[in-house]
Amino acid sequence: MWDMNHMIQGHQLIALKWRKSELGKWRWLLLSSVMISITIYLVPSLQIFGSIGAVSAGLDLGKEGPLVHIGACISSLLAQGGPDNHRVKWKWMRYFNNDRDRRDLITCGSSAGVCAAFRAPVGGVLFALEEVATWWRSALLWRTFFSTAIVVVVLRASIEYCNTGKCGLFGKGGLIMFDVSDVSVYYHLLDVVPVVVIGVIGGLLGSLYNHLLHKVLILYNLINQKGRICKMLLSLSVALFTSVCLYFLPFLAKCSPCDPDLLGTICPSTGRTGNFKQFNCPPGYYNDLASLLHTSNDDAVRNLFSTSTPNEYHPTSLLIHFGLYCILGLFTFGIAVPSGLFLPIILMGASYGRLLGICAAPYTKIDQGLYAVLGAAALMAGSMRMTVSLCVIFLELTNNLLLLPITMIVLLIAKTVGDCFNPSIYEIILELKGLPFLEAHPEPWMRNLTVGELADAKSPVVTLCGVEKVARIVEVLRNTTHNGFPVVDQGVTPPIGAPGCATELHGLILRAHLVAALKKKWFSSEKRRTEEWEVREKFTSVDLAERGMTIEEVIVTKDEMELYMDLHPLTNTTPYTVVESMSVAKAMVLFRQVPPVIGILTRQDLRASNILTAFPHLEETERKRK
Amino acid sequence: MWDMNHMIQGHQLIALKWRKSELGKWRWLLLSSVMISITIYLVPSLQIFGSIGAVSAGLDLGKEGPLVHIGACISSLLAQGGPDNHRVKWKWMRYFNNDRDRRDLITCGSSAGVCAAFRAPVGGVLFALEEVATWWRSALLWRTFFSTAIVVVVLRASIEYCNTGKCGLFGKGGLIMFDVSDVSVYYHLLDVVPVVVIGVIGGLLGSLYNHLLHKVLILYNLINQKGRICKMLLSLSVALFTSVCLYFLPFLAKCSPCDPDLLGTICPSTGRTGNFKQFNCPPGYYNDLASLLHTSNDDAVRNLFSTSTPNEYHPTSLLIHFGLYCILGLFTFGIAVPSGLFLPIILMGASYGRLLGICAAPYTKIDQGLYAVLGAAALMAGSMRMTVSLCVIFLELTNNLLLLPITMIVLLIAKTVGDCFNPSIYEIILELKGLPFLEAHPEPWMRNLTVGELADAKSPVVTLCGVEKVARIVEVLRNTTHNGFPVVDQGVTPPIGAPGCATELHGLILRAHLVAALKKKWFSSEKRRTEEWEVREKFTSVDLAERGMTIEEVIVTKDEMELYMDLHPLTNTTPYTVVESMSVAKAMVLFRQVPPVIGILTRQDLRASNILTAFPHLEETERKRK
Repeated sequence: MWDMNHMIQGHQLIALKWRKSELGKWRWLLLSSVMISITIYLVPSLQIFGSIGAVSAGLDLGKEGPLVHIGACISSLLAQGGPDNHRVKWKWMRYFNNDRDRRDLITCGSSAGVCAAFRAPVGGVLFALEEVATWWRSALLWRTFFSTAIVVVVLRASIEYCNTGKCGLFGKGGLIMFDVSDVSVYYHLLDVVPVVVIGVIGGLLGSLYNHLLHKVLILYNLINQKGRICKMLLSLSVALFTSVCLYFLPFLAKCSPCDPDLLGTICPSTGRTGNFKQFNCPPGYYNDLASLLHTSNDDAVRNLFSTSTPNEYHPTSLLIHFGLYCILGLFTFGIAVPSGLFLPIILMGASYGRLLGICAAPYTKIDQGLYAVLGAAALMAGSMRMTVSLCVIFLELTNNLLLLPITMIVLLIAKTVGDCFNPSIYEIILELKGLPFLEAHPEPWMRNLTVGELADAKSPVVTLCGVEKVARIVEVLRNTTHNGFPVVDQGVTPPIGAPGCATELHGLILRAHLVAALKKKWFSSEKRRTEEWEVREKFTSVDLAERGMTIEEVIVTKDEMELYMDLHPLTNTTPYTVVESMSVAKAMVLFRQVPPVIGILTRQDLRASNILTAFPHLEETERKRK
Repeated sequence: MWDMNHMIQGHQLIALKWRKSELGKWRWLLLSSVMISITIYLVPSLQIFGSIGAVSAGLDLGKEGPLVHIGACISSLLAQGGPDNHRVKWKWMRYFNNDRDRRDLITCGSSAGVCAAFRAPVGGVLFALEEVATWWRSALLWRTFFSTAIVVVVLRASIEYCNTGKCGLFGKGGLIMFDVSDVSVYYHLLDVVPVVVIGVIGGLLGSLYNHLLHKVLILYNLINQKGRICKMLLSLSVALFTSVCLYFLPFLAKCSPCDPDLLGTICPSTGRTGNFKQFNCPPGYYNDLASLLHTSNDDAVRNLFSTSTPNEYHPTSLLIHFGLYCILGLFTFGIAVPSGLFLPIILMGASYGRLLGICAAPYTKIDQGLYAVLGAAALMAGSMRMTVSLCVIFLELTNNLLLLPITMIVLLIAKTVGDCFNPSIYEIILELKGLPFLEAHPEPWMRNLTVGELADAKSPVVTLCGVEKVARIVEVLRNTTHNGFPVVDQGVTPPIGAPGCATELHGLILRAHLVAALKKKWFSSEKRRTEEWEVREKFTSVDLAERGMTIEEVIVTKDEMELYMDLHPLTNTTPYTVVESMSVAKAMVLFRQVPPVIGILTRQDLRASNILTAFPHLEETERKRK
């Protein structure tokens, strides 16, 4: 997801590394806590500026999307040392201005976002592990863990502070969002049948949802490209459709009499949130569909998950709810509103699970509220294809440890069924957006293609000499978009009279370093190698670690164009190299595991779709195989 | 931990790969479930043969050690296709007989073991992720998840079946071992102080424990090396000491009167497990130390974790318990008995936490049982230095989600404090056993050492020619212990009259493949390259994938010694290579991430201690830096 801007990392300066290892952990602790506190305090402001319309319109949207986004944005900002365009740079933050730290911080930020959205600290860490990071280190594990710990402590403190009603509805419901721990779970061997059915149908529905959402998103992309007015009209019409459905559909449901035990106390509920909305019904009666639709999404989920209420909802009401949220879930994601996918899928899955629970009621002992939980888990796994993180998120959402074994089985079945049909929803969206996120597994046909063939199929490599003319450097930087260039040098025994420079690879130089050197006007009039101490005087590690300058910002005069620049000191002499005959599959594993990038191949080149563009015949073979 | 036997993986055959990707997931699902079911049903037999003495002697031992070991052993056996020495090989299991699948299976097995020991499925997965695996793939994540799901379902089914008392005490206590969910957790800002204190002291005690255990284990190694009788005497004396302490120490404690509300019903408890043992006390009184010592370790933990019992234990009794288990915890691990570390540390930590809770009682609202939980978590983190997996294991052990934020803070503080002093207990034990487990982080001084220098410091490389005499191959195999040999070949333009073969690297050949080829007597009388189809006729992929043959088992006659062997078809032509000037730190990251091993360097060579042997001056620099 966040790999886009980090095509090439290259070597990190030893000086910088040392300084970092001295500062060590404490720096991280401090930074993370600052970051997370900001995240938490920004949440209300986002809700005001970004999602206020969406939420109050009752749109079918999750809040984890915007929160993850905020977390990642803040971390990215911090890692750049403050917002770039205003030049508000914090001096001590400059140490993080390198690709690795920025990537780590963004991972921390997104796990903090998930944690804030679901109050699920461990689930947030595992979400970042399973879905976000391509490259995982054990240090990152406990750094994300620290971020989510801070989030949850701040959250808990705020809930404690707001307990007295100082902050409106904030903190109502406590740390556990959809608590179903009040019911004990007893199950027998026979209960395996409905559990397997839930899993299989969840997998099928999930992959169908992925398929349809893909089509809808393509359609929306076409509409959104037509201009801002189209974009707004689309959002408005979805919002209008949602409001109309939410208000008028409950008229279709019949009124149900309140349970005599609850009559007057909690049924019907008027003027507050609750299970039994009166709406158009006479006193003593409630409208079950209105209880689900005339409320916030969170409360709707709570109502569906509510246990020991076997006769509260009519099957027809649940069917209408399920159908409505299938349509809304497909058409709401993708409009120009900050949105997440978790809550829509949970709503869909919960109503489908509860429906199944009603059907299975004569044969099973499991509560219908738990069926709703299982249905939600199944649809999530069928669409998002996560296992461990979903399992922990559901555990932290529902606080029912005894449900864990069944949840695990449902998740595994739904994921396996879904994987038979299409990739996960995140992969589909990533591909639609064209982000170069390397898949975890190489495709089978990649084994029969060598790296050499792939490199040949690309445009020829642009190389620089060890001591290069400034004019050529500027030309190369202006005319290409590569992020790194191989530096070639004369071999051990220089061939006398050979034109240009020979072809022994000296190393890899980064665009950013070239631009920095040009800006510092680090030229010499003769074609000679410079000493290392000269470089050290000229450049501090902080100068080189900084990113974001473009070649267009650097002005080089005509006289300077004729001078020379020694690239040796700035070159990373130890790039990762692979032999030409290595299969693409094997190289891809290397790329996925080791963050930086080698000479000529970039992460982009290893993406399946890009390879298939270069080798069209492979695609045909692939299709035949299927 | 399990990396020892997998020094070199090398290339996996394309044919085998294809077959695997066809079988795909289903094979895995099937295999894992078979494996896990066996694990579960073998547990009783282990307990009979291995731990029966230890458990009934009341030794201070955890059971996760033996269970992880069993899980790993069974997986390793399955991956070899059955026990080797009896030649009971299952045909269809041969597909797993390669290093990667074996490693994956062993990871699954160990997570299944943790899951079975603590009934913590997600904790088991994360334990394997954080502590066991050096190389982690997303596919592995959900495979281990599947294993633990099967374990927990089988466990749950057995508990259901045994509920009626058919299997003795098995299944008592249900799926949650130390349930403290009955108490609600309220805490205020002031409660941060005792929580921080618990964390800091936990970290200090944990690292002190690591330090002392290291010394004790060195001493025990010396004793155990003296022969079996010494080994047995050591175990016997520890067992005797434990029994004497457990029986006689309760005489030191005073008798306490039973709470009038509980009198007669659950206090004093005679003839059953429970909180209030009568022991030497008059009727209506109980001995609190006896309640902790005259019971199984599990029950002792349950008693310490028990909530809403603020006055049950005298501080002096807890102090005696803490001191005793500190001594036992140090001297029991390492005797010749299958043992784990979790339970001893939990016992120590729980009594220290409860002690602290009594001290902090006037200032805090948190229940003393929860203090015991936090103390146990702090000591675990201080000694084992895990974060996420410990957090989830504690969540699954205690089923109190509201405690999670405090647990996270305590774990992080204890881990940070502990890391200031020494490495984790697992790293200490690994180093004592001399297993080549690569640390997650390169040492700082590794950045200043290049791979080339490291390779120079070793003995010269043994290379083979592309077409080599049989005599030389046999000689090399007999006189070295390397697992792989670089195959060098004539360059593109062969130098006329050059002696031997030239020095262009063709690839890497594995010892196992050489031995297999020798055994198949795949010789030719002339020095020529063979065609690929000849090889394909001779060797199936399954033949080559098999391991375990040694050169001593192969008989080569004197005539055959003079023949030639073409190594080209068996050579892996795409090993990972690094440039000579790459720093050791960077190479180590590559080695840790990519499973196979390059030409000349092995995982062994990248271990800090091995490098320090080759470069003694580095150690001095390191010491000075400290």
